[in-house]
Amino acid sequence: MVTSLLIDLYQLTMAQAYFDHGMRATAVFELAVRTLPANRRFLVAAGLAQAVEYLETLRFSAEDLRYLDDIGMFSQPFLEHLATLRFTGDVHAMPEGTPFFANEPILRVTAPILEAQLVESRLLNIVHFQTLITSKGVRCVLAARGKPLIDFGMRRAHEADAALFAARSAYLAGFNGTATVEAGRRFGIPLFGTMAHSFIEAHDREEDAFRHFISSRPEGVTLLIDTYDTQRAAYRVVELARELAARNPPRAIHAVRIDSGDLAHEARRVRDIFDRAGYPQIQIVASGGLDEYCISRMVRDEVPLDGFGVGTALDVSADAPALDMTYKLQAYAGKPRRKRSPGKLSWPGAKQVFRARESGGEIASDCLCLEGETAQGLPLLAEMMRGGRRALTVPTLELARTLCRREVEALPEGLRELADSGADPPMPVRISNALHALVASMDEAGD
Amino acid sequence: MVTSLLIDLYQLTMAQAYFDHGMRATAVFELAVRTLPANRRFLVAAGLAQAVEYLETLRFSAEDLRYLDDIGMFSQPFLEHLATLRFTGDVHAMPEGTPFFANEPILRVTAPILEAQLVESRLLNIVHFQTLITSKGVRCVLAARGKPLIDFGMRRAHEADAALFAARSAYLAGFNGTATVEAGRRFGIPLFGTMAHSFIEAHDREEDAFRHFISSRPEGVTLLIDTYDTQRAAYRVVELARELAARNPPRAIHAVRIDSGDLAHEARRVRDIFDRAGYPQIQIVASGGLDEYCISRMVRDEVPLDGFGVGTALDVSADAPALDMTYKLQAYAGKPRRKRSPGKLSWPGAKQVFRARESGGEIASDCLCLEGETAQGLPLLAEMMRGGRRALTVPTLELARTLCRREVEALPEGLRELADSGADPPMPVRISNALHALVASMDEAGD
Repeated sequence: MVTSLLIDLYQLTMAQAYFDHGMRATAVFELAVRTLPANRRFLVAAGLAQAVEYLETLRFSAEDLRYLDDIGMFSQPFLEHLATLRFTGDVHAMPEGTPFFANEPILRVTAPILEAQLVESRLLNIVHFQTLITSKGVRCVLAARGKPLIDFGMRRAHEADAALFAARSAYLAGFNGTATVEAGRRFGIPLFGTMAHSFIEAHDREEDAFRHFISSRPEGVTLLIDTYDTQRAAYRVVELARELAARNPPRAIHAVRIDSGDLAHEARRVRDIFDRAGYPQIQIVASGGLDEYCISRMVRDEVPLDGFGVGTALDVSADAPALDMTYKLQAYAGKPRRKRSPGKLSWPGAKQVFRARESGGEIASDCLCLEGETAQGLPLLAEMMRGGRRALTVPTLELARTLCRREVEALPEGLRELADSGADPPMPVRISNALHALVASMDEAGD
Repeated sequence: MVTSLLIDLYQLTMAQAYFDHGMRATAVFELAVRTLPANRRFLVAAGLAQAVEYLETLRFSAEDLRYLDDIGMFSQPFLEHLATLRFTGDVHAMPEGTPFFANEPILRVTAPILEAQLVESRLLNIVHFQTLITSKGVRCVLAARGKPLIDFGMRRAHEADAALFAARSAYLAGFNGTATVEAGRRFGIPLFGTMAHSFIEAHDREEDAFRHFISSRPEGVTLLIDTYDTQRAAYRVVELARELAARNPPRAIHAVRIDSGDLAHEARRVRDIFDRAGYPQIQIVASGGLDEYCISRMVRDEVPLDGFGVGTALDVSADAPALDMTYKLQAYAGKPRRKRSPGKLSWPGAKQVFRARESGGEIASDCLCLEGETAQGLPLLAEMMRGGRRALTVPTLELARTLCRREVEALPEGLRELADSGADPPMPVRISNALHALVASMDEAGD
C-alpha cells in the first residue's frame, strides 16, 4: 500500500528545481506543533519507529519512475537521480513516549535539501497521527487511574493503517491491549475481545447465546449483557456461573460487558446482583461512546467498573482530530532560515530542547536552545539515524511505553488535568539567550 | 498492509462459536448511520468499490492461520474451516455518490452468518471513512459554487491509506484533484501542486526561488507569495511575468497562492496589483486552514479567488471526525432480529429504500420498506455482489462522481445549507406500513 509516491506532488517538483539548479547543500528541517489543541497542556511524541523505517527503506521503484515519467513534469536526468536516491541524512528525535510542549522540535532531519524536502509529507503523515493518538490515549490512561483500558476503535478509525497505528499508539500510552487482531500480530500487543449484540440476537434466547459462547471458549469469557434487559441478563449470568462451577473441569465467566444505557447505574445494579449471589470475582467492563471525561467521572464516582473499552473517541481523537504540526526549514547551507508569514513566525536554526528536573525527577522546565548550546538538565533530542542508517538508540515499543508512563508521571500535576481550568500555568519553556540573539540579528538584517 | 486479520478479535471468537454449534443459516446485516452529526442534513455513500474488493479477495493465508493457532483460542477444525473460507454472500448497496439520511441502510450483506459476521469490522472501517470524507467534501463543493477545489490534506490525514482514500473521496465529491501523487496513480485522479515556503526560504532571495521554479517547470507554475511580504511578492510576480512574456518560447505564471494572513484582504490587493499591471489572467488560489465555512464566506463576499486548497478540515472531517455508523443483524434463519438496548432501537428485517422524485427530478421523499415491498419511486439499493462475485453494476469512480453531482443537486435546497438553521425540515423518510406492522408484532411477542 505505502509506496514512495505517497508524497505531495510539490515535493517532487521542488526536488526537480533543486536538482536543476545544483542546490545540494545540507538543510535542517524540524517537526514541531505550533499550538496545542484546547484542553491539552502537553502532547506525547510517537511515530519515530515507523518514521525511521520509512527513511531507511525510501526508494523509487521502476514502476514509480514510469508513472512519474508518464505525467510529463520531470526531466530524464532528474528521474535517473531519483532511481538511485536513498535517504543519507541524520535524524535527531525525542524518544517515543516523551511529553513535549508547543514549539519544541520533536524530530530534526539534517540532509541534502532534496532528500530532506522530499520526505516532508510522509514524515508528517506518520508522526502527526501517532502523536495525536498517543496523546489522546494518555488522557484516557490518566482518567482511568490504573483501571485497564482496551482499544476497541478499529471500525471507526480512518481506514486500515489508522486502525493499526491507533492500537499501537494506545498501547504506547498505557492501554492494556487492543481488539484489532492484526495489531496484535504486527506489534506484539495483547489482544482482548468480548462478543457482539448480533451474536446474542442470532440465537432465539439470550441464554443459548451465552451457553454457546462459553462452550467454545474454554479459557473463559466476557459476556455482553445489555442486548435486551441488563438486569435479567445479570441474573442469567449468576445461574450460569453456578452451573459452570459444578462442572469438571470448571469453566469461568470472567466478566460481563455493558455497552448502553446509564452505565454507572447499570454497573451498580449488576455489581449488587453478583455480590449478593456470591460472585464478587465476576468483573464488569463498560464500553459504548466512552471518552476520557466519562471515564474520569465514573472513576471519581467509584462506579464499580473494572475496565473500559474505548473506541471512536480514541481512534479518531474525536475532540481534536488533528494537530497544528509542521515540518519547517530551519537552516540551509549553514544559514538559519525563517519565514515571516503573518501568524507563522517561528524560532530559526537547528535546535535542541533541554529538560530540567526537580531532585525527585519531576519535570521543572524546558529550555529551547540552539544546537550546540548547553543548558540545565538533559537534552531530549537524541541521534536516531546517522548517514541514513538507524542508530542503536531507537527504542522498542515496550521501552517507549515504560518511558511514557514514567515521564507523564513526572509532569507537574496541574498539567495532567483533563480540562483547562484557567488556573494552571503552562509548562515553562524558556528560550535561550543565543536563540533570542539569533532572531534579533535576523530581524535586523531583514530578508 | 491490509490482511484478513484486520478484524476485531471477537469476530473470530464468535465465528468459532457459530462453527462449533452448527449455526450455518443465512444472516442479513445492514450498514447504516443512526444519527447525523451536527450541521449535516444528508450524507453521501462511498467506499463500495473497496468494500467489494475486500469481500472478493477475503482469505486467510497460512501465515494468518499460524498466528491464530499461536494465540491458542481456536480449534483445529475451525482453523481448517477458515483456511478454505471465501465470502459467498450477496451484497446490495447504494451506488457510491448517493445522498442518504439517518437509519437508511446503505449496504446490506446476505450470507451464512459466520461470513457475514466476520467482515463487520473491516466493512465498517472502509465504508465509514469514505462516506465521512465524501460527505465533508460535498460540503466544500457546495460552498465553492463551481470554483475549483484541490485536496491538500495528506500530511494530516490519519496515516497512509486515509490520505489515499481521502483524495479519492474528495474527487468523488467533486474536487478537481489532489496533491497526493499515489492517489493520482492509483485512482487516476488529476494531480496539482504548487511550492512550499521552505523552497523560498532555501534561496537567499525570494526572486531567485521564483526564477528557479519557473525554469524547472516549462508547463507553467503557481508561485507561493506569502513567505515574507505578500504585496512585494505580487509586484515581483508582475516583473517576472513581463520578462517571461518576452522570452521565446514564453513561459507562464498561471497563478499565485496565498496561505496565511487575512486571505480575503490579501487576495483583493494582489488581484488589484495584477489587474493594474495588465495581468488579469494570473489566477489567485488560497489555502491554509480552509474549511467549507471560510470558503462559503469568501465566495459570498466575491473575494477574487480562483480556487482553494483544502487540507486538514477535509482529510479528517475536522468538525465531525466520525459517524454513528453501525452494521446490524437484521435477520437470521429467516426471522427478523432486533436489539432493545436503551437508545439503540432500530428497524428490523432486510430493508430497501425507495426514493420518490418531483417531475423535474428533485428528490421528494424516501420510504424505508421491507425488502420485497414496493413504494413510490425507485429502489436505491442495487445488487452489487451475488454469491461472492462482483455484479456488473459496481460503478466506476467517474460514474460515481457524476452521480454524486447530479444527486446532490437534486436535494431540496434547504438540505444543502452548510449550517443548521433550525428552520429546514429534515428530509422526509417515511416508514412503510409493513415495517411498522413487523415492529408491532415483534414488540407483542417480546424476546
